Amino acid sequence: MEPIPPQPPRSTWLALVEAALREDLGPGDVTSQALLSPEHPGRAQVEAREPLVLCGTDVAREVFVRCGADFEPLAADGDALEPGSFAALVVGRARDLLAAERVALNFLQHLSGVATLTRRYVEAVASSRAQIVDTRKTTPGWRALEKYAVRCGGGKNHRMGLFDGVLIKDNHVAAIGSVADAVKRARESAPASLRIQVEVESLEQALAALEAGAELLLLDNLPPVEMRRIAERIAGRVPLEASGGITLENVAAVAASGVDRISIGALTHSAPAVDLALEWNADSPI
Amino acid sequence: MEPIPPQPPRSTWLALVEAALREDLGPGDVTSQALLSPEHPGRAQVEAREPLVLCGTDVAREVFVRCGADFEPLAADGDALEPGSFAALVVGRARDLLAAERVALNFLQHLSGVATLTRRYVEAVASSRAQIVDTRKTTPGWRALEKYAVRCGGGKNHRMGLFDGVLIKDNHVAAIGSVADAVKRARESAPASLRIQVEVESLEQALAALEAGAELLLLDNLPPVEMRRIAERIAGRVPLEASGGITLENVAAVAASGVDRISIGALTHSAPAVDLALEWNADSPI
Amino acid sequence: MEPIPPQPPRSTWLALVEAALREDLGPGDVTSQALLSPEHPGRAQVEAREPLVLCGTDVAREVFVRCGADFEPLAADGDALEPGSFAALVVGRARDLLAAERVALNFLQHLSGVATLTRRYVEAVASSRAQIVDTRKTTPGWRALEKYAVRCGGGKNHRMGLFDGVLIKDNHVAAIGSVADAVKRARESAPASLRIQVEVESLEQALAALEAGAELLLLDNLPPVEMRRIAERIAGRVPLEASGGITLENVAAVAASGVDRISIGALTHSAPAVDLALEWNADSPI
Amino acid sequence: MEPIPPQPPRSTWLALVEAALREDLGPGDVTSQALLSPEHPGRAQVEAREPLVLCGTDVAREVFVRCGADFEPLAADGDALEPGSFAALVVGRARDLLAAERVALNFLQHLSGVATLTRRYVEAVASSRAQIVDTRKTTPGWRALEKYAVRCGGGKNHRMGLFDGVLIKDNHVAAIGSVADAVKRARESAPASLRIQVEVESLEQALAALEAGAELLLLDNLPPVEMRRIAERIAGRVPLEASGGITLENVAAVAASGVDRISIGALTHSAPAVDLALEWNADSPI
Amino acid sequence: MEPIPPQPPRSTWLALVEAALREDLGPGDVTSQALLSPEHPGRAQVEAREPLVLCGTDVAREVFVRCGADFEPLAADGDALEPGSFAALVVGRARDLLAAERVALNFLQHLSGVATLTRRYVEAVASSRAQIVDTRKTTPGWRALEKYAVRCGGGKNHRMGLFDGVLIKDNHVAAIGSVADAVKRARESAPASLRIQVEVESLEQALAALEAGAELLLLDNLPPVEMRRIAERIAGRVPLEASGGITLENVAAVAASGVDRISIGALTHSAPAVDLALEWNADSPI
Amino acid sequence: MEPIPPQPPRSTWLALVEAALREDLGPGDVTSQALLSPEHPGRAQVEAREPLVLCGTDVAREVFVRCGADFEPLAADGDALEPGSFAALVVGRARDLLAAERVALNFLQHLSGVATLTRRYVEAVASSRAQIVDTRKTTPGWRALEKYAVRCGGGKNHRMGLFDGVLIKDNHVAAIGSVADAVKRARESAPASLRIQVEVESLEQALAALEAGAELLLLDNLPPVEMRRIAERIAGRVPLEASGGITLENVAAVAASGVDRISIGALTHSAPAVDLALEWNADSPI
Repeated sequence: MEPIPPQPPRSTWLALVEAALREDLGPGDVTSQALLSPEHPGRAQVEAREPLVLCGTDVAREVFVRCGADFEPLAADGDALEPGSFAALVVGRARDLLAAERVALNFLQHLSGVATLTRRYVEAVASSRAQIVDTRKTTPGWRALEKYAVRCGGGKNHRMGLFDGVLIKDNHVAAIGSVADAVKRARESAPASLRIQVEVESLEQALAALEAGAELLLLDNLPPVEMRRIAERIAGRVPLEASGGITLENVAAVAASGVDRISIGALTHSAPAVDLALEWNADSPI
Repeated sequence: MEPIPPQPPRSTWLALVEAALREDLGPGDVTSQALLSPEHPGRAQVEAREPLVLCGTDVAREVFVRCGADFEPLAADGDALEPGSFAALVVGRARDLLAAERVALNFLQHLSGVATLTRRYVEAVASSRAQIVDTRKTTPGWRALEKYAVRCGGGKNHRMGLFDGVLIKDNHVAAIGSVADAVKRARESAPASLRIQVEVESLEQALAALEAGAELLLLDNLPPVEMRRIAERIAGRVPLEASGGITLENVAAVAASGVDRISIGALTHSAPAVDLALEWNADSPI
Repeated sequence: MEPIPPQPPRSTWLALVEAALREDLGPGDVTSQALLSPEHPGRAQVEAREPLVLCGTDVAREVFVRCGADFEPLAADGDALEPGSFAALVVGRARDLLAAERVALNFLQHLSGVATLTRRYVEAVASSRAQIVDTRKTTPGWRALEKYAVRCGGGKNHRMGLFDGVLIKDNHVAAIGSVADAVKRARESAPASLRIQVEVESLEQALAALEAGAELLLLDNLPPVEMRRIAERIAGRVPLEASGGITLENVAAVAASGVDRISIGALTHSAPAVDLALEWNADSPI
Repeated sequence: MEPIPPQPPRSTWLALVEAALREDLGPGDVTSQALLSPEHPGRAQVEAREPLVLCGTDVAREVFVRCGADFEPLAADGDALEPGSFAALVVGRARDLLAAERVALNFLQHLSGVATLTRRYVEAVASSRAQIVDTRKTTPGWRALEKYAVRCGGGKNHRMGLFDGVLIKDNHVAAIGSVADAVKRARESAPASLRIQVEVESLEQALAALEAGAELLLLDNLPPVEMRRIAERIAGRVPLEASGGITLENVAAVAASGVDRISIGALTHSAPAVDLALEWNADSPI
Repeated sequence: MEPIPPQPPRSTWLALVEAALREDLGPGDVTSQALLSPEHPGRAQVEAREPLVLCGTDVAREVFVRCGADFEPLAADGDALEPGSFAALVVGRARDLLAAERVALNFLQHLSGVATLTRRYVEAVASSRAQIVDTRKTTPGWRALEKYAVRCGGGKNHRMGLFDGVLIKDNHVAAIGSVADAVKRARESAPASLRIQVEVESLEQALAALEAGAELLLLDNLPPVEMRRIAERIAGRVPLEASGGITLENVAAVAASGVDRISIGALTHSAPAVDLALEWNADSPI
Repeated sequence: MEPIPPQPPRSTWLALVEAALREDLGPGDVTSQALLSPEHPGRAQVEAREPLVLCGTDVAREVFVRCGADFEPLAADGDALEPGSFAALVVGRARDLLAAERVALNFLQHLSGVATLTRRYVEAVASSRAQIVDTRKTTPGWRALEKYAVRCGGGKNHRMGLFDGVLIKDNHVAAIGSVADAVKRARESAPASLRIQVEVESLEQALAALEAGAELLLLDNLPPVEMRRIAERIAGRVPLEASGGITLENVAAVAASGVDRISIGALTHSAPAVDLALEWNADSPI
């Protein structure tokens, strides 16, 4: 088992780091420029202020390094941190640390927020074999990072975008005429490397889709009891994914219905930030 | 009174729109390419699925227009929408609408989420004269947009970044020696167009900062009773801003203490997404 | 049936068009600037000078439009053109046409070259049910465009990149220990939307991979007789793809072995340019 | 004599390397992420699989280094490699090598293809004093690299683009009225650092252009016997360049006509890829 | 006192350095490529050829380093250099030095020109307490660098742009109706971190603006005698800034009127370049 | 004769326009946002405030159009404008005009400054046949625009950069051994489309360079009497260019020496800005 889940390529997030520094720093930090000599040293720890699952150390490192500071990780992505524990040590010129501080924390507090919320869902279904899965409901510009945060929290990823998975919805079926024709056409046209997933809203549709050759079924907004009926009839021939209206309160019931995966948009679009801060060292007044 | 608050320049968010489309669309929508003829028409409304304050119509328009579709707004940013009401009408080729759909909704659900949460805070302090203000704790890459969403919710903006406001914190004071010297030095060095704001943690510090020439005071993490003491002694000579640990539960008490502004990081870093969706027209099956 | 195969999103090739214009035009066309008045008009056709399958009209249009000229297509991507027939009409200022000419033709001659070569392979296997498929051996920067050209020629696409298909090779197996463990681990870790493809070099490996749960088999560099043995034993349970050392001379024999797909790197990396030129109108001296 | 011809500035090809990695790697290599631990080591050689003239080692190095691997060249651009000989050694994490492998090879196989084809033309005219020269018929986005590959093969470069050479064609002459006026006007208007080249289609035109002050003559699509007549009459007063319809079969005859340069579009637009591959070391199973 | 004024973030000028190298180097230095072997060494000093205030060493370093050379500063930004003294030592391959030379000097000669002109103005008002201040009349693309050069010359910065300072002009007042309403509205709407500056053209307007709450006054194009009247009446309650028609000849008179700041567009838009050159070492023939 | 000299491609200056708007507008114009309703209309003329040669209308148009305003030129680049005459009319929302105003004027005042200074030099040598020519001493990022401004002033362009002209200096000669070998090697290696220019410092060197095959001679920092000696001996066989230490005071004497071209760095690096301003219409209060 790997302690750190597969990270996204740097090319997927470097532009976001640059944009973030640009929007915060703009033509310069007027306060530090006025009050700190250029070589004034600084030293601080990134401290967890509440229980959290850490995510984003590589991004934070990039922020500090770009500003000219050193960054030493004290914990790894995916680690559960208690309040008062440290995620990283940063050392450099105080001006550089202050230029990086807010941007780096903004990355960490959101990514760790996603990882932390995911972990809660994962723990809520731990007694089942269901996996917690994300969606395409991500923060624009953050797709690769947020999906990595989900992995850090113990979740799995749905397709990354419109390009790496076929998902046939009811209006696709309507446009084609029947689910059988839709699956057939998708199989002919889409790259052979992709599975065909079909969204269904009833047992009848599920059976029709399976008959048509669907390789994954998405059960959209069904009550757990209906999911159970479908799970029993499908009997493991293809994986089932539950979606829609799922909360920390009802996720265990959904998992108990026998589905294989449970996809939850809130993991990425509504995870509250967790509290992390820079704790400046006493012998480094700023 | 303007119905729509000042919008950020397009140059502050166009790159984010491009990145968002790229990460979702990648080399193409394999499902639509397989199942829809290129000219298959579509028509849908952007529908509110819960009560919300709308924000992001210009960004959503950009997303749809870039994908080749038409976008007609049916409500304005800052409007309060009831469930079932429409924010916009989108018309075009079904492929283009599907390419834009998720990205546009991802922008709208987050920006409207920020505006909606801000509105709740604004309403919670409506009986006072205090303003609700954002912070630099924003989603990296989204600074200008999220601060606009705060304005749409009725809030005010703190400085945009490190460059358009001087904020002297305790460790700056420590580095210089005294708050008097720090304010003096900032006044000499920083652009004359910027006010000097000083963070204080007690009445004594507040009076010292005022004496030193501070033009704004930031009261960091003080109990309302202490804020009231300070407000009474400062007596309106400079504006007071409360910060730290403020929630929907305690914000009214903070406002009642007599401060002028209340800054809240959660407005931008922890606003849950609101529910918006595309409602496809019956006569346009997809 | 659609006359024009699904096109790649413009975002996948706009930067290449910009780079191409920049490298050819640089600080300006010194010859035209010296010899043509700014408003000197021009009119010309893009003419096929040999039999070819057309590909790239949208890219060519973008080139001419960016230079300020009008572009009217006279044929569609995927059309077979005879020598002397026209692909498009271009009208505008002569300076603008000359600025666009070479770049637009460079795009058309390569993309149509790929489509034309693909068509030859497709026709060579027309009596079988095998599909002609491309590879990742594409011209850097041209992935999406070249894969589109393959579709225009009647071929199918392999995965677009490392991200939208799992392909387990012998050294992956070696790193894990057994093909069974490798497939199992890939199924657990990779997105559920992706099929697991396994590269095999013998019937024994093919059967082991099938047993392990492989959903596609890649037959690497096997003689047709061996492919036939495998095809007979697999009996359609998963699709088979032949790869390696395939030419126009032997492709029919490979197709006759019963494989489902034949992947050929030469489609994209070694297609010779086809001959297209601007035919200037007599009444438009330049 | 320099072993390696002048290389293009890195700024001319870095964006292409970035684009190439992005299009292949996208959000990540799903296979390696699933099957290889992050620190799994790798070591391999870039091996020639057919006789070739090497070109592109600096670009390949950039690809491997960007992916985190080390690259040690074992041969230099311009070297003739036999099958089984090595161009470079690459060492690093197996994941990083696999991320770079296909992109680096795609660069090498095309650039070496151009160099190899150029070398064949150069050798075909070795008994004459004619030089082999490229054209503006290059792969869009690759201008500087392909022209460098031509130099590696022993060829010379024509102008890089529309900006660094004046080339007067028949339709320019038609627009101005006479070749004499066209050359005069070009001399007055174009930068003094550039020579005036005139395209001619007959001896009469050649003499008129020379009389008008042309500094280079381009003989377009003339039979060798006609070129010889012109060469004899021009008698070395200005260089002559042959162009159009030249193949490996007829290039020696063209060279024997006495022209100074022979320009060939196929060098860059139709050079087949040469075969290079990564040979993984036995003690480095992947 | 700091020897070197606060520098702008590198992110504000890196793109300009890249553009400058691209426009000068393009596809390569044809002279050096023809005449110098790749490893031919070089060594030179950046020499002042007239008295000047140095500015731009970090930018020049970036230029040389990007070209592959080493750069060692021999003087600091803000230093006054005499003719014949050295600003820096550069060492590397002669090709790399020549690729960087002109671009680096172009940066230094302009930035040092701005610093040198500013110093002259600063010295002209040294007997007063007035500060010399820049404007928004900067060279497009150079805002942050030129404002840094002004600081190196001993000047102060006006706001960086439209975003970090409120400046109410007569036509804003006309649009609102009265200066009182304009200031009130600006105070309500603009970020609290910004001061309100009002442009006035008479004593009456100055008093009205002060009454309205203006925090800074801009005296536009007034004769010194009128400025003195205003300065006496304002009596230090808010800072006064003189603007318009100020030259080296009249700046002392303006300063003597009692204003606090004097803003001068010519500092940035009309500073003549100062003379700096590369002095190649004798033992390094090129 | 064309009224407007050849313009540089838009691709050479669009990025500079974007950078200029970004640096001035940043996150928004706080004054206009506070004081002007979004639809408040505006109308103004770009007015010359001193005699000048206009340059930059296309760039100014781009600035206004990007900000959402309309731009109608009232004069053409190259026109001599008297004080009080108008260069353009701009109409739109007042906010948009104010966002564009300073940036557009900054472009116009510099480019027209270069054109105006060039015109003065051109007029100073009008009685000779010498041409005024620019250098590579341009403002970084502005190469193509400034060289266009020189053309608008009646000057000619030297090479655009290191890539479109061979210039052999004394240290190149030193590196090779003799001017004869240097010219020979340059002729062999550099593109045939480029002329070989040689820098000389005496009659002896000039004759040696001519003998060696130089096609242009650069006379560096010679007194006019020496230039005349050289001009008489060269007798028109190759063009002569004077360079170094040339001012408005001595340029006529230089021209009278018989040289063909006089290159002057001050045209681009030291041209003072000319005075242009927006004159707002009375019926459009802002």
